[in-house]
Amino acid sequence: MRTTMGIIGIMGSGEDASVKDKQIAFELGSQLARKNFIVLCGGRNSGVMKSAIDGVASEQGISVGILPGSDKSEAAQNITVPIITGMGNARNNINVLSSDVVIAIGNTPGTLSEMALTIKNKKPLIALNQSIESIALLKSMNYNKLVIVETLSDVMIQLNEWLQ
Amino acid sequence: MRTTMGIIGIMGSGEDASVKDKQIAFELGSQLARKNFIVLCGGRNSGVMKSAIDGVASEQGISVGILPGSDKSEAAQNITVPIITGMGNARNNINVLSSDVVIAIGNTPGTLSEMALTIKNKKPLIALNQSIESIALLKSMNYNKLVIVETLSDVMIQLNEWLQ
Amino acid sequence: MRTTMGIIGIMGSGEDASVKDKQIAFELGSQLARKNFIVLCGGRNSGVMKSAIDGVASEQGISVGILPGSDKSEAAQNITVPIITGMGNARNNINVLSSDVVIAIGNTPGTLSEMALTIKNKKPLIALNQSIESIALLKSMNYNKLVIVETLSDVMIQLNEWLQ
Amino acid sequence: MRTTMGIIGIMGSGEDASVKDKQIAFELGSQLARKNFIVLCGGRNSGVMKSAIDGVASEQGISVGILPGSDKSEAAQNITVPIITGMGNARNNINVLSSDVVIAIGNTPGTLSEMALTIKNKKPLIALNQSIESIALLKSMNYNKLVIVETLSDVMIQLNEWLQ
Repeated sequence: MRTTMGIIGIMGSGEDASVKDKQIAFELGSQLARKNFIVLCGGRNSGVMKSAIDGVASEQGISVGILPGSDKSEAAQNITVPIITGMGNARNNINVLSSDVVIAIGNTPGTLSEMALTIKNKKPLIALNQSIESIALLKSMNYNKLVIVETLSDVMIQLNEWLQ
Repeated sequence: MRTTMGIIGIMGSGEDASVKDKQIAFELGSQLARKNFIVLCGGRNSGVMKSAIDGVASEQGISVGILPGSDKSEAAQNITVPIITGMGNARNNINVLSSDVVIAIGNTPGTLSEMALTIKNKKPLIALNQSIESIALLKSMNYNKLVIVETLSDVMIQLNEWLQ
Repeated sequence: MRTTMGIIGIMGSGEDASVKDKQIAFELGSQLARKNFIVLCGGRNSGVMKSAIDGVASEQGISVGILPGSDKSEAAQNITVPIITGMGNARNNINVLSSDVVIAIGNTPGTLSEMALTIKNKKPLIALNQSIESIALLKSMNYNKLVIVETLSDVMIQLNEWLQ
Repeated sequence: MRTTMGIIGIMGSGEDASVKDKQIAFELGSQLARKNFIVLCGGRNSGVMKSAIDGVASEQGISVGILPGSDKSEAAQNITVPIITGMGNARNNINVLSSDVVIAIGNTPGTLSEMALTIKNKKPLIALNQSIESIALLKSMNYNKLVIVETLSDVMIQLNEWLQ
């Protein structure tokens, strides 16, 4: 096994994810895997979760999915490590605590809860593809480990800065 | 014991609560207890949680606190039922699921996570004392069980409408 | 509201509870309520949980149910405070942490997990209506806050000793 | 990355593990990794958890640790994927749900809770290095997915039978 560089969380919507959200998630999963990061997400076979896992798989990387349900049936097909919590959305806090850096794509309710829990738990947060209203609220929180970015290369630059 | 009318959650900040947040929480706790609601909150001896519990106690009502830590030491003094989860902020999801209606006071990170989880779990949400940015984001989510109000009497009117 | 004396957990089986288990649970719920204890259990409308809650209700006491599912539909009818965890059997640890003393009736798998978690969390445990094999295993654990009893009056005597 | 064959849980004590428990855990971790299983355990830097992870690492396998605390400081040094739950012993249910088969070494209280939760969740269970009292209790439960074995080769034979 290749030495891993840390665990990066990619948080985003399932059924409500936009095409752009999913493209970002796939590309991010693949770039992170290429750099030997483990990618952690919500693990379901839908939206940002599925796309991130597919991106990791395209580079033979390791993906971890923290699943809300009580069996493996909802897991994305290409996942490496499905973790079955059986605890519904309470698992969002595990997503955040287990990630060295949390990357949030979009701001649907589940993802918003994960951004808020990231700040509450004082973990580093990179926000991507946010609405104008979400950007305004995030900025108003004056959180010093938050970066709002627009491109994938900005994400990779920020990760480099934080993790080396 | 008096017959209870349901469980109302009051969510808000601990150490970061404003004076106004705490006044609202106390008054809301006392009005809800007078109407025989059980009041549920995060249970800690600080901020909105402590004030809500003190308001309930002033009317000999029943308060329930869902505590993040693993023993009773952090519980508010006047609490009726301290529930010890030992699961940190993952307990925020229990706060939301256990409340017939969630009332959020302010929008610090923990409370924001609870508003987001309320929407994610499709439960009714009343938001009070929100910043301009939080109001804009909440409105942008187009959630049909969300009401943003300014006064306590608006809260009581909305509860009446939803719960009878 | 009457002043409460503490929270006593009554743990036992749902569908697999014996007639004797349920009789003990009802009587224990009623005796504890009469002495102004809050009674905490798994909250479901079945077996030891339902019987304990019915016993509490027969004395107008306060019962708390820590439910495994994600809505109120499975709760016992006479419950005072249903807590909705949405976290399945992981909620067994909350049952234990929230109880000043845990009383276990019988030793089906869920109850056995709660006895084990009580010992792991170093909380006081009273075991009732155990099989010969369960008694032998419990004794072999050399746990100094464990009492194995045969009658309800033994339970009340032990609670008195521990809680005053 | 090599294709994984499934996730096998190795449950056992931390500080209270015997020398024999730890030897079994190391050997089992290494044999499972050699056969391309992912090994899941409680993740701490102690006892059966540390030994299982060291065994996996000796074969360049993938180990997953479901940690009870809220940061990585307690994780075993050689772990591949530390999952930070922040939920104490409630995480034992995640250990069980996430494992295709649970292997329990010894019967200290935490491990006993995991064996009981495995049966409660109807997952396959292999018990190793149990006391006489634990064997008697386990047998009395008449659980058809439980096998009590004495040697590592018995474990591997049973896994083969269940997983192919």
